[in-house]
Amino acid sequence: MTDSIKTRRSIRKYKAKEVDNSLLDQLLELAARTQTMGNLQLYSVVVTRDAEMKQRLAPCHFNQPMVVQAPVVLTICADFNRTSQWCRQRRAEPGYDNFLSFINAASDALLYTQTLCNLAEEAGLGVCYLGTTVYQPQQIIDILKLPRLVMPIATLTIGWPDEQPVLSDRLPLEAIVHRETYSDYDAADIDCLYGPKESLPENQHFVEFNHKETLAQVFAEIRYTRKDNEALSGVFLDTLRRQGFLD
Amino acid sequence: MTDSIKTRRSIRKYKAKEVDNSLLDQLLELAARTQTMGNLQLYSVVVTRDAEMKQRLAPCHFNQPMVVQAPVVLTICADFNRTSQWCRQRRAEPGYDNFLSFINAASDALLYTQTLCNLAEEAGLGVCYLGTTVYQPQQIIDILKLPRLVMPIATLTIGWPDEQPVLSDRLPLEAIVHRETYSDYDAADIDCLYGPKESLPENQHFVEFNHKETLAQVFAEIRYTRKDNEALSGVFLDTLRRQGFLD
Repeated sequence: MTDSIKTRRSIRKYKAKEVDNSLLDQLLELAARTQTMGNLQLYSVVVTRDAEMKQRLAPCHFNQPMVVQAPVVLTICADFNRTSQWCRQRRAEPGYDNFLSFINAASDALLYTQTLCNLAEEAGLGVCYLGTTVYQPQQIIDILKLPRLVMPIATLTIGWPDEQPVLSDRLPLEAIVHRETYSDYDAADIDCLYGPKESLPENQHFVEFNHKETLAQVFAEIRYTRKDNEALSGVFLDTLRRQGFLD
Repeated sequence: MTDSIKTRRSIRKYKAKEVDNSLLDQLLELAARTQTMGNLQLYSVVVTRDAEMKQRLAPCHFNQPMVVQAPVVLTICADFNRTSQWCRQRRAEPGYDNFLSFINAASDALLYTQTLCNLAEEAGLGVCYLGTTVYQPQQIIDILKLPRLVMPIATLTIGWPDEQPVLSDRLPLEAIVHRETYSDYDAADIDCLYGPKESLPENQHFVEFNHKETLAQVFAEIRYTRKDNEALSGVFLDTLRRQGFLD
């Protein structure tokens, strides 16, 4: 895996070649070795291969073209429905319609998702993680017919790579690691940690293209704005409530 | 990685042998190849090696012995503080003090955590994921001095394995995978999917030991009860509010 992680990039263009069901099932099963809370496996995966279903899901992901182009779309969900059904069938009263249980199930779902990404990439597949899943969860719930106590949390598009984008940059290790206690960042730290990223030609071009002065402005004022974040926070909390995870 | 994931188990006993800083840093850096939202890397890792710091963290994790015994304890945090500091230093107004931003940062943190687990296990290290991190987050925040917009989300204890527990069971693939839409479980499905797990000698012993009638009762009535889940939901939401992620 060391080699595949070193050279990984998100892949958004795929060859017109199927991903065999046997290969996919093998990866889905192997990823399930990932640890989960009490070994309860608090997640489910909805596999989308049907072209019409992909068309219906696409608007939930801002119509990014890989959703209809990828041979396989996976929607990974935090799932306390199955475990609760099991409890009820076994004379046990489940108590998982609350926020902590959502956090537990979402954690299981995300850890599972990442092992699956790592395995798929090691097998030579191209993967794109769609963060848009948490923006319009109610539409995804309706399309995939997710019951109460099931919440979509991540989407992967998977296929055989038909592009090789440049490796994206990363912050230096000191930006993300703290020894013993968290040491907050001062102005000099920020310059030192973000300078190399900001001076990359592709990022400078990105700033120019967006008619901004700084890369941070592109993020805070165009891509991930307060207005959008606040509106989408409300949507997400409402959906959590409807799915039974919040009073 | 296929081999290491097939045989992985959570390791709670470690040899009295250090985990070199160079190896740890290499793994922490490699794991950062994991995709994140807008490539912003919305996480931080606090490395605990100091014996006294481990002693202080232990009660946050119900004094599970591996917290003080492991050479390294990592607390992985959802972090929008660093990115917000960057914005402010670059004439951009950050808008990340809201719930969606917590979900985005927590997702980044958990995906990073799982790649790190996969890499550490492939390198022969033993890892235990502590789900207890989300139970008493405020104590962890105080001990590790986490500022506003930083929330602990996962803890790993890491060391060289000094035990080889049996592989834990998993539900069959059909339990977690749905084709095109979610197909809910009826009584016959539950019997079929959970029967093998329930009939394992170790799980039957677990039920007897706890003086219960079913395995589900051990989970719902002893390990993860409604009462605890509801109380801890309140604690988590209060802490999210104090860290600035919820109104």
